[in-house]
Amino acid sequence: MNLPELPALAEPGLAARVQHAIDHKTKPLGALGRVEALALQLALIQGVDKPALRQPQLVVYAADHGLSRRGVSAYPREVTPQMVANMLAGGAAVSVLARQQGLALTIADCGVDAPLAEGAVDLRIAAGTADSSAGPAMTIEQAERALRNGMALVERLPGNALLLGEMGIGNTSSASLLMARLTGLPLADCVGRGTGLDDAGVARKLAVLGDALAANVAARTPLQIAAALGGFEILTMAGSVIAAAASCRVVVVDGFITTAAVALAEALRPGVLAACVFAHRSAEGPHARWLQQLAARPLLDLDLRLGEGSGAALAWPLLTAACALLTEMASFESAGVSNRE
Amino acid sequence: MNLPELPALAEPGLAARVQHAIDHKTKPLGALGRVEALALQLALIQGVDKPALRQPQLVVYAADHGLSRRGVSAYPREVTPQMVANMLAGGAAVSVLARQQGLALTIADCGVDAPLAEGAVDLRIAAGTADSSAGPAMTIEQAERALRNGMALVERLPGNALLLGEMGIGNTSSASLLMARLTGLPLADCVGRGTGLDDAGVARKLAVLGDALAANVAARTPLQIAAALGGFEILTMAGSVIAAAASCRVVVVDGFITTAAVALAEALRPGVLAACVFAHRSAEGPHARWLQQLAARPLLDLDLRLGEGSGAALAWPLLTAACALLTEMASFESAGVSNRE
Repeated sequence: MNLPELPALAEPGLAARVQHAIDHKTKPLGALGRVEALALQLALIQGVDKPALRQPQLVVYAADHGLSRRGVSAYPREVTPQMVANMLAGGAAVSVLARQQGLALTIADCGVDAPLAEGAVDLRIAAGTADSSAGPAMTIEQAERALRNGMALVERLPGNALLLGEMGIGNTSSASLLMARLTGLPLADCVGRGTGLDDAGVARKLAVLGDALAANVAARTPLQIAAALGGFEILTMAGSVIAAAASCRVVVVDGFITTAAVALAEALRPGVLAACVFAHRSAEGPHARWLQQLAARPLLDLDLRLGEGSGAALAWPLLTAACALLTEMASFESAGVSNRE
Repeated sequence: MNLPELPALAEPGLAARVQHAIDHKTKPLGALGRVEALALQLALIQGVDKPALRQPQLVVYAADHGLSRRGVSAYPREVTPQMVANMLAGGAAVSVLARQQGLALTIADCGVDAPLAEGAVDLRIAAGTADSSAGPAMTIEQAERALRNGMALVERLPGNALLLGEMGIGNTSSASLLMARLTGLPLADCVGRGTGLDDAGVARKLAVLGDALAANVAARTPLQIAAALGGFEILTMAGSVIAAAASCRVVVVDGFITTAAVALAEALRPGVLAACVFAHRSAEGPHARWLQQLAARPLLDLDLRLGEGSGAALAWPLLTAACALLTEMASFESAGVSNRE
């Protein structure tokens, strides 16, 4: 399938120019730590000396999973549509945070096992994926359709920043499977407690996911792996990540499942990671390891494991602060402050 | 001297009631991690079920230090009034962040070695402290005056949150000395690079601070230690912390120097720590250790070492988010979402 080209690298000199500006702000060299690196990254993504964030869009990609019928989650399958309704009604964590931070909130139904909720965007592929412990979660055609849906969604959205969120009972299982296949790590290193499994629950989840890997050994290419083990929300999100990177937007990655979408997008279209700001290190066990593999340093480390985009929303003010500091702080020269002796 | 009483402990039952509300929000138990603990702390500080933050005040306490004439900083002494002017003109990091986050910004001149800047609040004790490597940095009377100034300042400020900032060339030296005396740790464990000393500079700083400890062994009580080794900005800030805690305000602690003020306030009036939210773990070496000693878990860890209140301002949105989540999120019951099986 056709995936859009990523933008050319920023003009030579931009990084040096922005770093010079940062280094001459009225503060000791490097004293704003990782906020300085963030400001530089935002400038490079936008290809400008003075980055600015406009009309940020938080999209929650929701779908159901065949695996959720196999007892891999602490919550029942009907929670997916219930939480979609809660998000639309304004009562979910992501609803509260989006409202508070001034983030436009879109709920994209990518394949929830329930009728389309009023107010949700219809990107439905089917009423949940097939059970990947018995074969591919979806067909290649469905996978391509989900990717295209995600790209088209971003192209319709205004602004220059996309914050990733998700909802789908069973989707840590899908993310774990993708992690195992994309990183080559043992499955046991890729599986966590999800929404709160006890030890017996984790053992059961591990057994089911082992079946899913065995049932899908034939999948080889990133697209085949995505179709075999992914979810509709994860593939739609991966499409959105590719389109966002292609249009010089900033992508704010939330937790474990959105990291799966980004890693998948990177496998499909290498280079998209440069557009990604990782919001936080999740308390979902394998997330820290995957971030290391991706050489990603997340901004927050607050033991969050909710998903929905809640971590992306909580980190958002750091991005706007980084832009403001780069754009508005005085230099030693302009402020008449003595530099170090 | 008279220090105000701290408020009585919250009514029995409040903590349990708030925790119950948090646990029944539409999310897996504990899934908002440390943001949940923060919401509970804010409720307990305010003594209410639904905490709300009003008219947050960021105060930068500025002063000069006798020690800065002894070559303990990478920057010259005149940078203190220059940065005060930069803050008032809107070009400093804290100016940019306060504007962006909607924080009222006050610059309190507690003893800068320059005429009072227009727009700064006059809490001046003297034009910088005496050189503590040769005896006490200030008299007991000056120390008490600084504490009273800090208390009176808070009593005049509106709102229910105080964010701590500071400016003063040489003030990491004063903070290191206070850390050594208040914690009992060896001086070498309490000294860092400040605004960017090289190894030779750190060695020189350590020698000068060793002289200061030796010159002030007679100081025994917290007030005597504060007068011997403190700075006018640190003592004024400590007074403000005590007054803020006494009036059920939330205190947001920035980096190493503001931690010194809070630790001093706790020594003078045990219990104030309960009102303190620690914004970040500074890259100033000894800060992490001091936080551990105070059993404080900071929210951010972004290699910041600027001071000014910049870290407090960067963490501020997490406090407002914690309040919003506690106040506005739906419960499983109210949203009709199934709880775990």
